[in-house]
Amino acid sequence: MEPLDSQVGFVLEADRLKTVLRQSTLTDRSRRENSAEHSWHLALMALVLAGHAPPGTDLARVMAMVVLHDLVEIDAGDLFVYAAPAEQASQEEAERAAADRLFALLPPAQGSSMRALWEEFEERATAEAKFARALDRLQPMLVNMVTEGGTWAAHGVTADQVLTRVALIEDGSPSLGAYARAMVGRAIDRGILAPSRGG
Amino acid sequence: MEPLDSQVGFVLEADRLKTVLRQSTLTDRSRRENSAEHSWHLALMALVLAGHAPPGTDLARVMAMVVLHDLVEIDAGDLFVYAAPAEQASQEEAERAAADRLFALLPPAQGSSMRALWEEFEERATAEAKFARALDRLQPMLVNMVTEGGTWAAHGVTADQVLTRVALIEDGSPSLGAYARAMVGRAIDRGILAPSRGG
Repeated sequence: MEPLDSQVGFVLEADRLKTVLRQSTLTDRSRRENSAEHSWHLALMALVLAGHAPPGTDLARVMAMVVLHDLVEIDAGDLFVYAAPAEQASQEEAERAAADRLFALLPPAQGSSMRALWEEFEERATAEAKFARALDRLQPMLVNMVTEGGTWAAHGVTADQVLTRVALIEDGSPSLGAYARAMVGRAIDRGILAPSRGG
Repeated sequence: MEPLDSQVGFVLEADRLKTVLRQSTLTDRSRRENSAEHSWHLALMALVLAGHAPPGTDLARVMAMVVLHDLVEIDAGDLFVYAAPAEQASQEEAERAAADRLFALLPPAQGSSMRALWEEFEERATAEAKFARALDRLQPMLVNMVTEGGTWAAHGVTADQVLTRVALIEDGSPSLGAYARAMVGRAIDRGILAPSRGG
């Protein structure tokens, strides 16, 4: 098969990410968000919030990671960020199998380099991956704030759980982390987030 | 207002692009595509098809343009690519007013530079804008091919109309243009695209 034929095949297969639903809703609460439009939102955030990445962060790599990061959900589906550890482990396995299948649709060298970007995002070891993951954590928190609790309210998530995610945002961007921490404080004050279980 | 507060305000306002519907459907024909997930699809195409951009094309600028290009539809809505010239003119005016409002939500220097990127995309004068526009034309054609005619069939669009768009793809990327031209030929052969009105 010609390289361009495989690339177009991959692009068309990727269309299915538009049918993968997340727990989060849109800010107008009209429906649940899908993983394709969520990925676009992260790419927009990467552009707008680029100044909050640590100096030297390669923004083009961040953009590529956020665009690619959820493709594995085409086969594996989306798992709620506060799911139980056992579910997280089996999700990881399903995502790895999905990556095997999906990136193999591309010409081999391109498939390997895109898979490497996805793995870099998952491993969260580089500045780029940490910043990309910070955006991925921050976006649903922003939506929860404007939807009066959103998935926090729907799933009984408490502030101490949210703060473990805020630590990941701080690790990717100190200023976005501080913003998220202050936001959790406001959410508790406004009564849209319980401080802790029974709290 | 602090810069980060305005940036978050812009990011949340941008959420509304997920509610703007295009004429195109998803490849599984389950529903119409929205402009946010369409923008993600173009960003993915920019990554995957980067090798088809003319040498020297700045891919990071292409990515930024495709992520931003449809934001004005939050106020102006989406206009079908084969709409009448009078509709195109009034759409242009509405999009300009939308750009005035939306980019003003950002800190001034950032708002100006993002608006400049949107204008660059609209003017189609640089290599980056031409390539980004080529992707924007190619994506719905790919969907029409796998949905047995899609918006071509639904709106009675003919091959001579499609070929005026293929010329724009050729202008942004000779190899993608050649691919699109061959695809139109196959669409005519398969009877999912009429050669011309009455043809």
